[in-house]
Amino acid sequence: MNDRLSFASDYLEGAHPSILKRLADTNWQKLPGYGFDEISLAAKDKIRQACHAPNAEVEFLVGGTQANAVMIDALLQPYQGVAAADTGHISVHEAGAIEAGGHKVLTLPGHEGKITAAQIAELAGDYAADANHDHMVMPGMVYLSQPTEFGTLYTRSELQAIHDVCQQYDMKLYVDGARLSYALACTVNDVTMADLATLCDAFYIGGTKCGALIGEAVVIPDPQLLPHLFTMIKQHGALLAKGRLLGIQFDELFKDDRYIDIARPAILYADQIRDYLKQNGYQLYGSSPTNQIFFIIENQQLARLEQQVAFSFWEKYDETHTIIRFATSWATQKQDVDQLCKLMRELA
Amino acid sequence: MNDRLSFASDYLEGAHPSILKRLADTNWQKLPGYGFDEISLAAKDKIRQACHAPNAEVEFLVGGTQANAVMIDALLQPYQGVAAADTGHISVHEAGAIEAGGHKVLTLPGHEGKITAAQIAELAGDYAADANHDHMVMPGMVYLSQPTEFGTLYTRSELQAIHDVCQQYDMKLYVDGARLSYALACTVNDVTMADLATLCDAFYIGGTKCGALIGEAVVIPDPQLLPHLFTMIKQHGALLAKGRLLGIQFDELFKDDRYIDIARPAILYADQIRDYLKQNGYQLYGSSPTNQIFFIIENQQLARLEQQVAFSFWEKYDETHTIIRFATSWATQKQDVDQLCKLMRELA
Amino acid sequence: MNDRLSFASDYLEGAHPSILKRLADTNWQKLPGYGFDEISLAAKDKIRQACHAPNAEVEFLVGGTQANAVMIDALLQPYQGVAAADTGHISVHEAGAIEAGGHKVLTLPGHEGKITAAQIAELAGDYAADANHDHMVMPGMVYLSQPTEFGTLYTRSELQAIHDVCQQYDMKLYVDGARLSYALACTVNDVTMADLATLCDAFYIGGTKCGALIGEAVVIPDPQLLPHLFTMIKQHGALLAKGRLLGIQFDELFKDDRYIDIARPAILYADQIRDYLKQNGYQLYGSSPTNQIFFIIENQQLARLEQQVAFSFWEKYDETHTIIRFATSWATQKQDVDQLCKLMRELA
Amino acid sequence: MNDRLSFASDYLEGAHPSILKRLADTNWQKLPGYGFDEISLAAKDKIRQACHAPNAEVEFLVGGTQANAVMIDALLQPYQGVAAADTGHISVHEAGAIEAGGHKVLTLPGHEGKITAAQIAELAGDYAADANHDHMVMPGMVYLSQPTEFGTLYTRSELQAIHDVCQQYDMKLYVDGARLSYALACTVNDVTMADLATLCDAFYIGGTKCGALIGEAVVIPDPQLLPHLFTMIKQHGALLAKGRLLGIQFDELFKDDRYIDIARPAILYADQIRDYLKQNGYQLYGSSPTNQIFFIIENQQLARLEQQVAFSFWEKYDETHTIIRFATSWATQKQDVDQLCKLMRELA
Repeated sequence: MNDRLSFASDYLEGAHPSILKRLADTNWQKLPGYGFDEISLAAKDKIRQACHAPNAEVEFLVGGTQANAVMIDALLQPYQGVAAADTGHISVHEAGAIEAGGHKVLTLPGHEGKITAAQIAELAGDYAADANHDHMVMPGMVYLSQPTEFGTLYTRSELQAIHDVCQQYDMKLYVDGARLSYALACTVNDVTMADLATLCDAFYIGGTKCGALIGEAVVIPDPQLLPHLFTMIKQHGALLAKGRLLGIQFDELFKDDRYIDIARPAILYADQIRDYLKQNGYQLYGSSPTNQIFFIIENQQLARLEQQVAFSFWEKYDETHTIIRFATSWATQKQDVDQLCKLMRELA
Repeated sequence: MNDRLSFASDYLEGAHPSILKRLADTNWQKLPGYGFDEISLAAKDKIRQACHAPNAEVEFLVGGTQANAVMIDALLQPYQGVAAADTGHISVHEAGAIEAGGHKVLTLPGHEGKITAAQIAELAGDYAADANHDHMVMPGMVYLSQPTEFGTLYTRSELQAIHDVCQQYDMKLYVDGARLSYALACTVNDVTMADLATLCDAFYIGGTKCGALIGEAVVIPDPQLLPHLFTMIKQHGALLAKGRLLGIQFDELFKDDRYIDIARPAILYADQIRDYLKQNGYQLYGSSPTNQIFFIIENQQLARLEQQVAFSFWEKYDETHTIIRFATSWATQKQDVDQLCKLMRELA
Repeated sequence: MNDRLSFASDYLEGAHPSILKRLADTNWQKLPGYGFDEISLAAKDKIRQACHAPNAEVEFLVGGTQANAVMIDALLQPYQGVAAADTGHISVHEAGAIEAGGHKVLTLPGHEGKITAAQIAELAGDYAADANHDHMVMPGMVYLSQPTEFGTLYTRSELQAIHDVCQQYDMKLYVDGARLSYALACTVNDVTMADLATLCDAFYIGGTKCGALIGEAVVIPDPQLLPHLFTMIKQHGALLAKGRLLGIQFDELFKDDRYIDIARPAILYADQIRDYLKQNGYQLYGSSPTNQIFFIIENQQLARLEQQVAFSFWEKYDETHTIIRFATSWATQKQDVDQLCKLMRELA
Repeated sequence: MNDRLSFASDYLEGAHPSILKRLADTNWQKLPGYGFDEISLAAKDKIRQACHAPNAEVEFLVGGTQANAVMIDALLQPYQGVAAADTGHISVHEAGAIEAGGHKVLTLPGHEGKITAAQIAELAGDYAADANHDHMVMPGMVYLSQPTEFGTLYTRSELQAIHDVCQQYDMKLYVDGARLSYALACTVNDVTMADLATLCDAFYIGGTKCGALIGEAVVIPDPQLLPHLFTMIKQHGALLAKGRLLGIQFDELFKDDRYIDIARPAILYADQIRDYLKQNGYQLYGSSPTNQIFFIIENQQLARLEQQVAFSFWEKYDETHTIIRFATSWATQKQDVDQLCKLMRELA
């Protein structure tokens, strides 16, 4: 496993060293449970500050599917569903967790993982205009991911437009930020955490893929929105007795700008790999500017590639080509990137 | 927080130092996700060995409520409910997580947290005999905790009798071992992990309260029993991308007899505190032989006590007395125990 | 089946003849579906009038368990449960329909099927006072039945007191009126439909046991309370395409005072049977003043009785006695009552 | 309402007169509840005979959405979803009832409401081949409607092919027969009820749209398949106390070939209307050979049409045209058909 290069995903390694150190430093402190410890409280404050949302409710959950399932359940009425791109994580890769909570995912065809304000307006407008809509699932919220599953980004103005449609049709807006640090560290990005706090009813700041062992920080800018969220978290089996584990991690990740800073090299490396691939005749797939690199490879090259580097199969491109994904992360090492580039050149 | 003694619970500290060390040692290893890493696989093997259950399916979950919700959902048919003591964790303190999964908790009056084979037989027999039972919730499984929420233990023969009733009435038997190490380390205990694997359809070995940061290891002795448990775990939002975090912890806890060994001092200290309380005129409440110490205290003493030590309020005993709980753990320090004893004597 | 007397239940016969006639008279009318036909609208108006609740939302459902499941689901938040007598229909005989909707039934020990304002206040007060209540199921509503499963009645002042407690603790109050006509027709009753509309957040007026083929009319006095109830009904599979079937029945049952009037003989006959039983040395069980008659019978008598009359087994009284139930209904015939009385005298 | 022609749907009128007569004739019979009365038992036998399925379990439910929700819930494991045409009733018009039961609807693009064995094989094959399929919803069954929502029919060989794919991939096959009589009465149809019983794991025979007031008869050819279906029905609030109401209706509908015979005129009339429309220059939409007639109409014609006849809006065709639907039924009168034809000619 360890002697082969791996760019298979962004959750291959453990945690940022500062987290391990803090875990060790605080190990013998006797702290109250369930997130009421002072470190968790401090971490929440740091996140509020980073989001310019001084009153926001912040809750720490363990993983992305859990965060999505809990929050969508909390934000929707029983008769409502959630609109999402057909390639959205909740649409495909959460084993039906949203439906298990009783809610339909109303899929819209995505373009590189993104949906548009116009599509949402059409969905909501069609619903409103349908004489039978009382027999249908009401679109109650919009789920986006930033970056998307294709590594693409919503712009500030796209988000604003989606926000406006949501307001118009009384839908909640929720953003899945499983890889948010890689959006924030990206030079073409113009959406800040403060923007998310202004435009969303709720969003989560990913930890698992962004330097933490586990953990996602849910932010609800309006603290009145979900008065008994704590109990709903417990009811979903999503409450940790040792909440400190999550608090410590986010307290470390949100020291100064660490959450963004540790993602910067991942973006630089991803850009370097993309440049290198193009220079060597590979065709990129899509336009991801973040830490996920999609490209098309000839199947015989692919067979040789997988001897030497781990990657993610994405999908078949045609009979003789395949789309694959490399992912960099906060933990990616320069020498691995250089070795990968060398390898790709030799393979070309 | 930290200058006051605390015997409030058994999840006050972080993790056993061996775990923190292993996390650091393995931090930069690139490991596959979702529990397919070699460390998680090794940990599962160690648990199978400890349980004398070479074919068992072992899955790592994050917390006790999550483990209970996932497993009860997986083990029950939609029209079945789970029998449990009225004081069982699922009956009271899981915010309705079992009902959120669609299942009724069929409570039986517990005695110090325990229910008997006879009670279960009566429940199942009454159900079977009731002419209207097709309009009722079928008892489909039995939930026990070992040790119970009152610190008491089922004996091998009690468990055997409950197992036999379950067989007779085609009910599953499931044991919540959130504090299992404290049962196993207890001198009066005669139920081994191998016994649990023989007698139960599923049980979980608690990590969170027994030396881990988080994590519970679910054991299903018959690997054919729940063919798609992995997907159900994902569907419950209970699957960790970085499964290594759980694998590492259980691999450390199950090195040699560490899981039991680290609990032994907790039992010794608890016995010492109980002896001390009795010697100083306090009345113990119930007969817990494990790491939870329940006793009755006069309310004015209580007011003074809480200046100096953190504990758990249990329940009102009468107008002038209260039942409180101390808990020791794998992390309890001898000097704290000595100080507590001194304090209790002065208070007496 | 038909040559033996039967007092087994109050749903043995079809429907009040006026209903069959109206079904025939309107059979070829082309009416819109889903309850938007003019007859259903007229029926709803009659019910609003009978309840002195001119703005109430009225919805027709098919059966009692369905009405309870839909309404409890609609009235509760996901993290709330419903308080009910341990003998309440939802607690015992609905096959877990409430839990299937994700909600815990918080049972209180009933006295002859009734619970008190004091019990509810204690439940809600204990919850509020419990430091761990965020880990528990919040009592979000109270379920009563009028008459109860034991035929007993809440008085106006008892209901008022329960209403007040509900207001105090922000709980909804819901009344299951499966046999409501038998309460309303009872001389000792002092609770009108208008009282229910004043005191409850929702209640249902039973049809199935009170003259209809099927159907229950849910009344929600405040029409703003559940804005999308129609969709929730559909989502529960509880919406009839031919809503006329329900509208016609309630339009007939609510012509003048028919709903109450047709229940009066049932009460008279029940009183007559109760008097007769007492005169002949049988011991009544409980104090039901409505159409359900509970009494204790010696087991050998019972064996002879069941040759000649169908009844409901209620429960074992002691080794040699059994509690059984006779039920009269709107369809009970005088000659059957007379024959039953004769039979009971001979058996005595 | 009643002076305007209506071809808006097939549930406009009450019930076949034989049903009303039987309701009246049996009204005073004291019958056991919950479908255990002799009439219901006889009706079930008649259905078994009509299906050549002597051992089948037959259960009567109240409506189509209810039947679908109960049966899909009963047939699926918690981690499975149901494949259906994107225009299927469960996909669009059941207010999320399937998702409320915890299951995803896996939509496939339909052609005139139908999906093919090849599409299902591709879905199941892609799932099986996907390395991440344990993170996805497993296709556990196929939902078809016969006739479809577009009035089209599956042929015997199409059904056989779908059956074979289901067997290959271990999926259940379920057919929604809300309008089944109109399929069976159609001359081009080659699928009998016996075929359905041979090829399906479960299907339902529609009553509501086919001569009954309410009611659908679920047929499960293998009675071992769902051992506790009765309790699941109760749990869904779908059990009628007066089961006789459903038994009587199906006992009447299944006397001789009445279920098919009463649908024959509806097909004749529909054919006549289709011919007439074509002759008068209207363009039919799709190829429905059953009681639903879809055609394209110019918007100005439409405006005049709706003064005189009620129909169903189907969808916008283009800027100046609309697709609308007429439906005939067992209750359609010849003079209404003639009048409609005259009207359409005048409008042309």
